[in-house]
Amino acid sequence: MKLSIIIIGDEILLGRVTDTNSGTISRALDPLGFETINVVTVGDNREAITHAVAHALKTADLVITTGGLGPTKDDITKDVLTDIFGGTLMRDPEVTANIHALFDARGIKVNPLTENQAIVPSSCRVIQNRLGTAPIMWFEKNGRILISMPGVPHETEGMLPEVARQIASHFHHNLYFTHSTFITTGITESALAEKLSDWEEHLPPNFHLAYLPDSPIIKLRLDGSDFNPEQLSHTTKELEHKLELILGDLLIHRGDASLAQIVIERLRQRGYTLSSAESCTGGNIAHTITEVAGCSDVYVGSVVSYANEVKIKALGVDPSTLDSEGAVSEPVVRMMAEGVCRLTGADCAVSTSGIAGPGGAVPGKPVGTVWIGVKTPNGFSSKLYHFTGNRNRIIARATATALIDLLSIL
Amino acid sequence: MKLSIIIIGDEILLGRVTDTNSGTISRALDPLGFETINVVTVGDNREAITHAVAHALKTADLVITTGGLGPTKDDITKDVLTDIFGGTLMRDPEVTANIHALFDARGIKVNPLTENQAIVPSSCRVIQNRLGTAPIMWFEKNGRILISMPGVPHETEGMLPEVARQIASHFHHNLYFTHSTFITTGITESALAEKLSDWEEHLPPNFHLAYLPDSPIIKLRLDGSDFNPEQLSHTTKELEHKLELILGDLLIHRGDASLAQIVIERLRQRGYTLSSAESCTGGNIAHTITEVAGCSDVYVGSVVSYANEVKIKALGVDPSTLDSEGAVSEPVVRMMAEGVCRLTGADCAVSTSGIAGPGGAVPGKPVGTVWIGVKTPNGFSSKLYHFTGNRNRIIARATATALIDLLSIL
Repeated sequence: MKLSIIIIGDEILLGRVTDTNSGTISRALDPLGFETINVVTVGDNREAITHAVAHALKTADLVITTGGLGPTKDDITKDVLTDIFGGTLMRDPEVTANIHALFDARGIKVNPLTENQAIVPSSCRVIQNRLGTAPIMWFEKNGRILISMPGVPHETEGMLPEVARQIASHFHHNLYFTHSTFITTGITESALAEKLSDWEEHLPPNFHLAYLPDSPIIKLRLDGSDFNPEQLSHTTKELEHKLELILGDLLIHRGDASLAQIVIERLRQRGYTLSSAESCTGGNIAHTITEVAGCSDVYVGSVVSYANEVKIKALGVDPSTLDSEGAVSEPVVRMMAEGVCRLTGADCAVSTSGIAGPGGAVPGKPVGTVWIGVKTPNGFSSKLYHFTGNRNRIIARATATALIDLLSIL
Repeated sequence: MKLSIIIIGDEILLGRVTDTNSGTISRALDPLGFETINVVTVGDNREAITHAVAHALKTADLVITTGGLGPTKDDITKDVLTDIFGGTLMRDPEVTANIHALFDARGIKVNPLTENQAIVPSSCRVIQNRLGTAPIMWFEKNGRILISMPGVPHETEGMLPEVARQIASHFHHNLYFTHSTFITTGITESALAEKLSDWEEHLPPNFHLAYLPDSPIIKLRLDGSDFNPEQLSHTTKELEHKLELILGDLLIHRGDASLAQIVIERLRQRGYTLSSAESCTGGNIAHTITEVAGCSDVYVGSVVSYANEVKIKALGVDPSTLDSEGAVSEPVVRMMAEGVCRLTGADCAVSTSGIAGPGGAVPGKPVGTVWIGVKTPNGFSSKLYHFTGNRNRIIARATATALIDLLSIL
């Protein structure tokens, strides 16, 4: 079954806000057998919304729109949907009650503009939005379904399980699906493609391998579908087994997970705690790890020693070493890792010191030069890297590489 | 002039990777007078790419595609563009030389799959991609331009200035543009819309106000265009002045900037240095600030005291206070802020302690409860917040709120 997603909002079209809703929806409905055929982003513009909706209803079984439902003058989605699906705009007492309940819980008075969020086309069925004031609207026409969802990402994400449940009960399924993820590192995408070329060419027609590079890791996802669930399971296991053998040491994890989740799981297995001492990554290692719920049993904390005085005072880095070797050096990342373990009592530490740019380069140490240290109860090791790209990319690469270096030692 | 953007890639359609290229392109070409009319994301699928390109060439003056140019079997964009624009696929010696130069610089051998990146349609003009192996291809048909760019975000971003320069010299302009940004906080979008309703209704037809909410701030962008640059400048100034008066204290900054940039600029003006002591924000405050290039003259570092032992050992938080008040309490954020100033020697500090969830709630302190402390040379203040949403949203809200609280005191 085919899914078309329409993202509505000038702020996204103009590039002021990055759309994440389309990915959230695509991922959530994939296991229900919906293939996303396209995502169309349009502005708060009557003709553009009308054209996108009309085209999507011709080509997809299910259309999901997000956004364009706010109380400001820009937002005209409900008008357009009334034109397309018929009916009239009417105030819905249940939505009114929902809005008042939400505002009461926060102790805020509802203003008239917000109350207008309860005006919905009579041609839709409302799914109450427990997380915000914009109602979720379910439309049907000629056997096609259109669902209008809010633009605020946490509302869309939070309400999707309920919406997906209603979608599943509306559409009937007898096709079964498998999705297996393999996380690899230490190889370029093209070299990996060459290595897998034979295996990939002999895949059965109901299986497909997708390359999902997110440097320095490449995720591989093997997707299969079959009307016979036993046959599907059997073939999937055979293909997975063969793929694992080909990947060998390149494979760092089976199953979909973030690098931080893999690190946390590995530390938990080993019974180790972790800390970090960050200069050029500026807290991004700590942030990446603490995005994972429940990390607190293994992650104790970090010192972001951006200034040299903090390296000296908080981490006990030797000032004369800083003078002679410079902050971006092997002895300094060693002292940083040792210092943060001493300060926090953690068993392990990763440390970074480098030049994220665009300024800060010195002779022999261009932008992108990063020393990464890893300390475990078995000792310390470090590596020198030269990353390319802009500041954000260098920070992201150094963060991911520090986690991979830690994994390779644990 | 109208711009249509086509994002090609299964990984984006399936929601495994978030598209940021469309925003980058839209923002870069907006000042050249290009209105982005839509962004269409399609998979690595011949029919979908063909349909999207054909439709875009009918409706837009300029079409930019990104992605679908990798060396793996998935990537078929060049085939499709050859079908549409004619010519044949040929190996381009300059692209071959560029690929070898890139690999030589990294000391890596070029494999045959990567060499195939140099095969391009004879109907295009190549713009050499200095940042990667996928060539940038410029096509013309019936007065419309299509430019195919790489999918890797840092390559697209890095090459856009050169591509934009060539676009500007191709298209002629005599329409002038202004864009003014106003950053506000402390008000909901609907209340702000109500406050500005009169002013907005009397805007000249060649001006438009866009609401760009990114809670807890709302950016307002006033866009104007005119064939007469003097008239445009005069009207813009008048409108800006009036808007500033209406916004009053809600306005925290004029011009487009991130909260972190505003904070850094304000600290620089005051001659203060900053540190942070983070529990529930887990390093995200440090990361947000250190994303800004050149922050090191005001930002010295952070202690991410995720574990209570780190609060005690590194920041000198009193263990008996932790016992009696709990980690999420006013006295603890006070001691954290004081401790990190002592440790780092910074003049100012922000501190956070809260429950980001989904676990960790205790009676009287539900998920979303966050204490935020701000220390400056003039003293300490703190506030208790109750944020809603999932873990990521609570971390993001607490981070932004800490920066706003600091700004309001500086």
